[in-house]
Amino acid sequence: MILVLKGQADLNLQIWITISIIALIVMIGISYTQTIYAYPKGGGSYIVASDNLGATPGLIAGAALMIDYILTVAVSISAGVAAFISAYPSFHPIMVELSIALVILVAWLNLRGVRESGAVFAFPTYGFILGIFATLIFCTYKVLHAPPGNQVLASNIVGGEMLAAPLFIVLRSFAAGCTALTGIEAVSDGVQSFREPAAKNARIVLQRMTALLIVMFVGIGYLSQHLPVLKLYSNSDPRYRTLTSQLAVYAFGDRSFGFYYVQFATMAILVLAANTAFADFPRVASFLARDGYLPRPFARQGDRLVFHNGIILLGLAAASLVFIFHGELDLLLPLYAIGVFTAFTLSQAGMIAHWRKLKSEGWQKSMAINIVGTVLTGAVAVIILVTKFLDGAWIAAVLIILVFLLFKAVKLRYIAMAKQLILDAPLPAREYKHTALLLVPRVHRGIVKALNYAKAVDPNCQAVHVTLDERSLPQVQRDWMRYGQGVPMVVLNSPYRSLIQPVLDYVDQLSEQDPDQVFTVVVPEAVSTKWYQKLLQENVAAQLKAALAQRKNVAVTSVRYFME
Amino acid sequence: MILVLKGQADLNLQIWITISIIALIVMIGISYTQTIYAYPKGGGSYIVASDNLGATPGLIAGAALMIDYILTVAVSISAGVAAFISAYPSFHPIMVELSIALVILVAWLNLRGVRESGAVFAFPTYGFILGIFATLIFCTYKVLHAPPGNQVLASNIVGGEMLAAPLFIVLRSFAAGCTALTGIEAVSDGVQSFREPAAKNARIVLQRMTALLIVMFVGIGYLSQHLPVLKLYSNSDPRYRTLTSQLAVYAFGDRSFGFYYVQFATMAILVLAANTAFADFPRVASFLARDGYLPRPFARQGDRLVFHNGIILLGLAAASLVFIFHGELDLLLPLYAIGVFTAFTLSQAGMIAHWRKLKSEGWQKSMAINIVGTVLTGAVAVIILVTKFLDGAWIAAVLIILVFLLFKAVKLRYIAMAKQLILDAPLPAREYKHTALLLVPRVHRGIVKALNYAKAVDPNCQAVHVTLDERSLPQVQRDWMRYGQGVPMVVLNSPYRSLIQPVLDYVDQLSEQDPDQVFTVVVPEAVSTKWYQKLLQENVAAQLKAALAQRKNVAVTSVRYFME
Repeated sequence: MILVLKGQADLNLQIWITISIIALIVMIGISYTQTIYAYPKGGGSYIVASDNLGATPGLIAGAALMIDYILTVAVSISAGVAAFISAYPSFHPIMVELSIALVILVAWLNLRGVRESGAVFAFPTYGFILGIFATLIFCTYKVLHAPPGNQVLASNIVGGEMLAAPLFIVLRSFAAGCTALTGIEAVSDGVQSFREPAAKNARIVLQRMTALLIVMFVGIGYLSQHLPVLKLYSNSDPRYRTLTSQLAVYAFGDRSFGFYYVQFATMAILVLAANTAFADFPRVASFLARDGYLPRPFARQGDRLVFHNGIILLGLAAASLVFIFHGELDLLLPLYAIGVFTAFTLSQAGMIAHWRKLKSEGWQKSMAINIVGTVLTGAVAVIILVTKFLDGAWIAAVLIILVFLLFKAVKLRYIAMAKQLILDAPLPAREYKHTALLLVPRVHRGIVKALNYAKAVDPNCQAVHVTLDERSLPQVQRDWMRYGQGVPMVVLNSPYRSLIQPVLDYVDQLSEQDPDQVFTVVVPEAVSTKWYQKLLQENVAAQLKAALAQRKNVAVTSVRYFME
Repeated sequence: MILVLKGQADLNLQIWITISIIALIVMIGISYTQTIYAYPKGGGSYIVASDNLGATPGLIAGAALMIDYILTVAVSISAGVAAFISAYPSFHPIMVELSIALVILVAWLNLRGVRESGAVFAFPTYGFILGIFATLIFCTYKVLHAPPGNQVLASNIVGGEMLAAPLFIVLRSFAAGCTALTGIEAVSDGVQSFREPAAKNARIVLQRMTALLIVMFVGIGYLSQHLPVLKLYSNSDPRYRTLTSQLAVYAFGDRSFGFYYVQFATMAILVLAANTAFADFPRVASFLARDGYLPRPFARQGDRLVFHNGIILLGLAAASLVFIFHGELDLLLPLYAIGVFTAFTLSQAGMIAHWRKLKSEGWQKSMAINIVGTVLTGAVAVIILVTKFLDGAWIAAVLIILVFLLFKAVKLRYIAMAKQLILDAPLPAREYKHTALLLVPRVHRGIVKALNYAKAVDPNCQAVHVTLDERSLPQVQRDWMRYGQGVPMVVLNSPYRSLIQPVLDYVDQLSEQDPDQVFTVVVPEAVSTKWYQKLLQENVAAQLKAALAQRKNVAVTSVRYFME
């Protein structure tokens, strides 16, 4: 960029830089193929780094990845909205709002459990590949057949404030291409999700992704040389149009079907990229949680509530980033690159250690590949950190460190808990006397199941009635005589009209008589499917449980009966 | 008001109107004293009307009252803010925001459980009475000793846009005084809360309230004749100053200590009035809930969660009203009066029926009082409804009808539920086989209590371990051999890393083998007092319970262990 600004960029330099970047992409592709075979159960950067280099590098890689998934959502959605705005510039003023709405929409679809079925995935993917290749081919054709000196883009953008130099375009599209690199990480993390033979299929995907990336990159690099009037603005500028949209205008003409097609296909693929992050983020979180660096529930990927928490967390974080950075891609991309290349470097370094340890057949060659990969990705990480430090790379660095510290804090807490809970000698098997108390607010059919349950767990159980309304007491007592199956009923007065307090007092009173006792308070609970019926029912069990929080010898069980 | 506007109001008319209003207040005072003695356990309009006139009139009274408590909060707080703004007019633009903030503050104090201790109550009450009487006395003194023709108020309000006619002032202050009338309702509803002898003390309070009301009312009526330059604006007008503040300026001088004292004392007493509504609203709700017209939990006044729901409901409703009506007292007061007088009329009519039925000593005299009361309050209700119908009285009428329909709907639902749950013949006592399943995520000290509990409720219980992380399985099995007290352990695989699903499947599998079985899933649950520790722990019990929602034969019990 400095060279560009100084006007010293020449064709040679661009060719060299393009070759380096292609080498980098190929390198990353090859070395991740190795990782897939070495870790067929999923080998993201966190696993590879922590397995081979130890906990700390693993956690740094994990932190970098978690941050990157958040950025993937923020960047992909912002870039998707940028594609849309290139087609409909009048929406530019509400760019940030649109992006946040899209983040919420994608999060909501994931909460609803809309998973990536083949069709949903394939349609935008092939649609986008088709669109971008058609654009590149048409552009190239027009460039080759254009009369000399007539290479002016048919864009409706006026004013020549910033005609982009070709090198600049190459660098910018590489930066944007980094988003695709997280895709590589996603593949290696999720090998298990592929159809069998999983490792082989994952490798094929990885190779095709790399190939597509290179072709698109080279194509854009070539065109940038021959379409000198491409204009680049920050996407916070109303005149901003994506590079792709400018190419599409040149290829198919402004406001043509091809133009709109490319914009919408780009938007679709980017929203899908964001969606992928919603699937991968909980996966990385589960690996970390399994090892005690995140709250343990996150390890239970298969449980809806837990999965939901991860989605909500990711959605909120991504929406906040979009809001804070006004969806400006130039601000978000440097943050992003730091995380990707940090994770890549640690993963590659981990693979070096892996080969040294394993010494399987051909390990020297594999190790050599990974050494080159480590040096390349490490160099990129350092260069970005140094050159872009003040442009925002420091924010990524700080975030990664904070998340790393969070992991450490969680782990420390779990270690402290484990110490408290350590079992070093078998505890004497204590015999408790068990008493079941059945709460009977009114006598009706719903009570019967709870009564049977109470009798099953304690043949000498007691029924307990708290008098909230003195007028109904005689009726309750008469009914109980008739339907109570001989279980004795205790009536507790409630001067302050509390249902909870008298039960607590009664339990305390019984406990005092015999401390070696455990209680089960059995609460009949109505269950209904309609929301308005839920408003009429009381979740007494939960309230009792909360009220009993400090009493160690009481458990609360609700026995549900079902309402139509 | 029409007379005032036509300029036909004369002194005679004002005197007659003043006398009628005083008669009305006295009448209400006397007849409520009768109610207190007839209903020493609390005789609000709802109870008296439903007891003597039947369900429908009772429910209308109840609906009117519920609406009125909401309005009490909205009106008192808005009026309190008006007093403050009279002292600090620069706050006028944020009048509505201030009012809503105050509503939230009072609601929050009530949620926190700040109750009306004697001191908190007494200080603003006596402070206000002192302030208002001093104002009236000083004004009267100045009026009597003022040189003729010099009766100009030392107000800093300029411009004569609306010099208030004395009659108008009398009517307006009567409307405002209606807020005080709900206080009468509050006393008769809450007789039980008084110190013994409760009925006698309640009567004394009632008499003193009535007396104070009359004295203030007559005082203001008198002064309105002799201070002809009082100015009245709607409180949405920045020039608005409360009547009291204008009197205080005349009495003590603008910006004097006395002036500020009266404003703050007025504000304090009005905030306290709002606070009283927060205590009374749940009480009326509990009477209605006891009879099945509101969700039953509301009957449990003594339980914190329920009480909180009432407070939040009242706070939200009042804040919405302030927001919708921009805190404009002239819009809120007609709504208010409809509710009060509807409730009063029904209560009085109920008392007529009460005496006719009871025929206790002197019942004819008591009945005569209540007949006069019914006619008077009924006439006021009708007059306000008719004359103010388009000014907002229709809103109150609609709200009362809606709440009435809500009561009916709740009752219908409870009747339907009761029908479903009716027990007409003793059900055969069914003998269930009971099986306890102890969930063991890891083996540690926290498990031991749950294990003992499981053994107490089912000597043949089973431990269940769901494998989320294959690497830790051998350790879990070794530990269980050692510390499991001989309870057998079942290991369930979880291919999708769910903790919940395998348990459900296992329960289903066991149920199929023997349908006449009930299960208790015992879940050890860590309890800690620090919020950040809570984030690290899983409420598996609640999640299991939710997942088991449709299974009728499974109960979930969490046995808690305590973390430091």
